[in-house]
Amino acid sequence: MRLHLNENTAGCSPAVLEVLRELGRTAAAFYPDYETALQAAADHLGVPVDHVLLTNGMDEGILAAAIAACRDHSNGVPEAIGVSPAFDEYEICTTAVGGRMVTVPLDDDFDLSPEAIRVALTPRTRIVFLANPHNPTGRTIPLDTLRALAKDVAPAMLFVDEAYADFSGETMIDGAMLAALPNLVVGRTFSKAYGLAGLRIGVLVATPATLAPMRRAVPPYSVNAWAAAALPVAIADRAYRDWYLEQAAASRALLMEACVRLGLPTWPSAANFVLVRVPDAPATVNGLAARGVIVRDRSGDAGCGQCIRITAGIVEDTRRAISALEEVLCAAR
Amino acid sequence: MRLHLNENTAGCSPAVLEVLRELGRTAAAFYPDYETALQAAADHLGVPVDHVLLTNGMDEGILAAAIAACRDHSNGVPEAIGVSPAFDEYEICTTAVGGRMVTVPLDDDFDLSPEAIRVALTPRTRIVFLANPHNPTGRTIPLDTLRALAKDVAPAMLFVDEAYADFSGETMIDGAMLAALPNLVVGRTFSKAYGLAGLRIGVLVATPATLAPMRRAVPPYSVNAWAAAALPVAIADRAYRDWYLEQAAASRALLMEACVRLGLPTWPSAANFVLVRVPDAPATVNGLAARGVIVRDRSGDAGCGQCIRITAGIVEDTRRAISALEEVLCAAR
Repeated sequence: MRLHLNENTAGCSPAVLEVLRELGRTAAAFYPDYETALQAAADHLGVPVDHVLLTNGMDEGILAAAIAACRDHSNGVPEAIGVSPAFDEYEICTTAVGGRMVTVPLDDDFDLSPEAIRVALTPRTRIVFLANPHNPTGRTIPLDTLRALAKDVAPAMLFVDEAYADFSGETMIDGAMLAALPNLVVGRTFSKAYGLAGLRIGVLVATPATLAPMRRAVPPYSVNAWAAAALPVAIADRAYRDWYLEQAAASRALLMEACVRLGLPTWPSAANFVLVRVPDAPATVNGLAARGVIVRDRSGDAGCGQCIRITAGIVEDTRRAISALEEVLCAAR
Repeated sequence: MRLHLNENTAGCSPAVLEVLRELGRTAAAFYPDYETALQAAADHLGVPVDHVLLTNGMDEGILAAAIAACRDHSNGVPEAIGVSPAFDEYEICTTAVGGRMVTVPLDDDFDLSPEAIRVALTPRTRIVFLANPHNPTGRTIPLDTLRALAKDVAPAMLFVDEAYADFSGETMIDGAMLAALPNLVVGRTFSKAYGLAGLRIGVLVATPATLAPMRRAVPPYSVNAWAAAALPVAIADRAYRDWYLEQAAASRALLMEACVRLGLPTWPSAANFVLVRVPDAPATVNGLAARGVIVRDRSGDAGCGQCIRITAGIVEDTRRAISALEEVLCAAR
């Protein structure tokens, strides 16, 4: 049971698989066309198509933003600001492209201090990476806080990673907001709620002028033909998506209850995972693995001593994972 | 008839499609595993797996090389050298990441002057992009010339784009040569001979130390699960690949003969396309399109006045394209 990468372990929508099975030998051999996928993504997000850049998963969007942010060294080595702990690709991409990552800590409950971001700003700050909901904690940042931060960090970009926003229901994607905040870039992925992680498709959303340098950093055919065919069908199957969001919400509630019952500290999560502090993270991860449940050891992350991250996916899996966790913890007592 | 993007218009191997149709909903939803694909690529190329980086098509490889080459500005704006005409992604990627592209012309027959590359070298040169066979001409560069150039341009990297090397049969990929030339990076794609352009998969090949900064510039899951499943099967189906290489070689010969017969200048090509000088390139492209044959207008490229590029794929298509070309030229007389 893969509960370590926040995937949709039920798989993609059955309707998506049907469409993929209709693709033939020339779909594999021809460079893809993106018109339908792009229009579907734009309609789904409620913005014009020129506000959307399809990417090979959100990872490519993060890299493109880092490239655009760090291409100009005329003022010294460009800097990115992020929080710690965080998804590691912000730092990997920033340093890969020759920038410098500056991290500020979250508070003890993993909440963001906007003031800490402001203090870290320098004339070389080109981009600020934040995730909402945050990974690995599932904590949210109020949209008003993000709006204010976007203004404060300008002319640096504010990159809001909304990989898990389908689960929280809150988004910065709004035509008027994007127009008012031209330094705002929002990243989305269809890997999580839509179960397309293996196919690789995400989007960057911003005003056309803001997107322009990122478009240049994304190769012309970076999204494959299978992902392009899957996206409109995945978006159209709202029933499947809604079912999975309900499963994830129910699983999250079950995991929170179990943590209370077992006396394990955790934090309210708005995403499809929960961070849990256990007595011994490596031993718990190994004990769960021995019972066929893979979870993620996050104990090496800042402030995450003895923490593991468990995907909150389909309820049946969650019940099995909780039983396994109870066994492992009892065995250790 | 798509003869404008040098695709395999017969499609991928039937064996590849069979494997793709077996993939299910969780293949779409799980992050991919690359062990089998990586091993197949390494075995096929005759190098250890640590010499291979799987990429989302060769375009991602070019971008990763540009990122690695241009990330350090301590000596001023990093420079790349390329020839003109050339595949446009070298310049797009170099400028996207903040580097400067320096181009040197080819001679009247589109042959490379290694001396012109040497003259263009500066202390800021970080990478030299060459394609062998060259695109859009199909001309080859002797391997000895490339070996000598690799030594001359060091410590800058020599990036040899071998997108069409399956058709020429010549390659710089050789363990001993890579060890002797640590600044050599070779790019390959499975888009062309193997008919996987829509699936997106290529590789970079170099020594592990040379690859390291490029690995950091390629996201961890940039190759999708369908491409990863397709690659070992595509490589294993040698009969299909060989059939397509024979078709392409026969088509190339037919196109060369037709050019002689029609009095159209062309150049010996080792790739799956030929560059042809016609009396009026835009009119010829339009005339062919009206007859259902799409070819590429390259007349805007340096030295390519009134040139079109025609894919040399399956023989049946080529015969139809030649008939259409004869009609268009006769109609114009």
